[in-house]
Amino acid sequence: MTVRVFVTGGTFDKEYDELTGTLHFEETHLPEMLRRGRCMLDVQVEVLMMIDSLEMKESHRARVVEACRDAAESRLVITHGTDTMVETAQVLSAALLDKTIVLTGAMVPYAFGSSDGLFNLGSALSFVQTLPAGVYIAMNGRYFTADNVEKNRNVGVFEERG
Amino acid sequence: MTVRVFVTGGTFDKEYDELTGTLHFEETHLPEMLRRGRCMLDVQVEVLMMIDSLEMKESHRARVVEACRDAAESRLVITHGTDTMVETAQVLSAALLDKTIVLTGAMVPYAFGSSDGLFNLGSALSFVQTLPAGVYIAMNGRYFTADNVEKNRNVGVFEERG
Amino acid sequence: MTVRVFVTGGTFDKEYDELTGTLHFEETHLPEMLRRGRCMLDVQVEVLMMIDSLEMKESHRARVVEACRDAAESRLVITHGTDTMVETAQVLSAALLDKTIVLTGAMVPYAFGSSDGLFNLGSALSFVQTLPAGVYIAMNGRYFTADNVEKNRNVGVFEERG
Amino acid sequence: MTVRVFVTGGTFDKEYDELTGTLHFEETHLPEMLRRGRCMLDVQVEVLMMIDSLEMKESHRARVVEACRDAAESRLVITHGTDTMVETAQVLSAALLDKTIVLTGAMVPYAFGSSDGLFNLGSALSFVQTLPAGVYIAMNGRYFTADNVEKNRNVGVFEERG
Repeated sequence: MTVRVFVTGGTFDKEYDELTGTLHFEETHLPEMLRRGRCMLDVQVEVLMMIDSLEMKESHRARVVEACRDAAESRLVITHGTDTMVETAQVLSAALLDKTIVLTGAMVPYAFGSSDGLFNLGSALSFVQTLPAGVYIAMNGRYFTADNVEKNRNVGVFEERG
Repeated sequence: MTVRVFVTGGTFDKEYDELTGTLHFEETHLPEMLRRGRCMLDVQVEVLMMIDSLEMKESHRARVVEACRDAAESRLVITHGTDTMVETAQVLSAALLDKTIVLTGAMVPYAFGSSDGLFNLGSALSFVQTLPAGVYIAMNGRYFTADNVEKNRNVGVFEERG
Repeated sequence: MTVRVFVTGGTFDKEYDELTGTLHFEETHLPEMLRRGRCMLDVQVEVLMMIDSLEMKESHRARVVEACRDAAESRLVITHGTDTMVETAQVLSAALLDKTIVLTGAMVPYAFGSSDGLFNLGSALSFVQTLPAGVYIAMNGRYFTADNVEKNRNVGVFEERG
Repeated sequence: MTVRVFVTGGTFDKEYDELTGTLHFEETHLPEMLRRGRCMLDVQVEVLMMIDSLEMKESHRARVVEACRDAAESRLVITHGTDTMVETAQVLSAALLDKTIVLTGAMVPYAFGSSDGLFNLGSALSFVQTLPAGVYIAMNGRYFTADNVEKNRNVGVFEERG
């Protein structure tokens, strides 16, 4: 089984820029994270963009849908900023691709010591192997279907729609 | 859904004892790891023992089977040393418990910076939610059924039986 | 010998706020860092403020001078943002306090895995024990007198004035 | 000013060997640590041996003395296991080299997240720049002269001789 991971950026891949004191993107950490997890699953990593999801426009999400459609693989993971992850999930759901697509991200950059990134990656890569075709979000150790999930911005976790 | 995690020790939970220069066990890191993963799944952590799996005897594995049988939950994760994880999986399989049981561990202690522990925990907690009743090992981003897995000790990864 | 560490904030103590995606201050990490270094020197930690040094006004620096003057100790370390560390060092130098005062900071927050914070703290605490009365900056493994140091903003290191 | 760092191993540089579950030596972490500290001091790193100091024999310590004597630099740091660091310091002291020599080590391997290694390295590199010719141990944020130091094995810290 091959899984393709599409990287779109988000907090997951942010880095601290010591010259400006701000957070920015450099290379994705996905390969390093897969090595750390000693992942023996056949994973193809493809960077689509490196963007904060608050800056995503319709064209960005369309690019994600197109990439998912064109991929040879039927099991896909997408790393994504958590702020508009639900929106991208819904756009993908509407595309009715006959694939298992799992979006995940992180509340704290992987570059930080206290990141949830590695936990979420392990989670998403596992859900994508067992869930039936459909679009899901994997966060906080759980999975949600694209039509029944929202980000609780007060607490910073994902939940079913209230 | 509630998942119970039974802790048995293994490399997963080893710590460096600075006074003796050796590795030993103190408190389990499971609660800290679940917090780091911002896990919102209802997880009950129960420590059965803190032991290197090379030191497990029949009585230890029987204790694990008993705990799995008595648990109210039908979805269980067991953290375990990787050296004899397959043996415990086989003993559990023979017990024919009608539950989804996923064993996992780590090649490098969580206390180390380069540990696979958090990745494996996220992985196991996800597989346990979606796999049907049976006994599995979750390592290296994959899952294996108890009757078809072995640890490749040369490379330090889990594979199907050759 | 007792050393007092005055905390003023700076990148040294910044944290990632996962709800807003920005960097901010919470509690100082100094006590935790001293524990990690297994520091047996008698160190008193006192938080004066938690501020990015770009936001320091004359009144902030005056507060720092006052605290140094009033301290019972004659050996003082000040953790400070690197952007205006030289300015505070010069204001302290002009105060002609008969004490050994060493300012230090970090280019990457201690909360990040790749921080120089712990290295700089060990460095500053050592210089403060051996240098004669005067005001110094300890960064990049070196020490500089307050009248002969500047931050090279292109490279992000401290150097003698060119 | 150039400082030469002689590496002899010790807990400082130990690594976890995931295939055997034991601690062992691979490459020294010194260059990586100097990069993390953004050290701009001119430091030459030379590996003399990679050994647990409990396994040092007279010939090993003689090798260290010889290297210190032959070095072009007059300011030297030696990374060393903490168990017999005092012995090596005393052998060096007896050699009456007219140099500033500072020994340091770590109670927890640098490879672990909770290591004192980086703190001690910053400390030693600072003491070596300011202390007069002599042999010293830099541990726990303090410095000790070779003739007045011992390791308190109950607590795992260095102190003056009681």
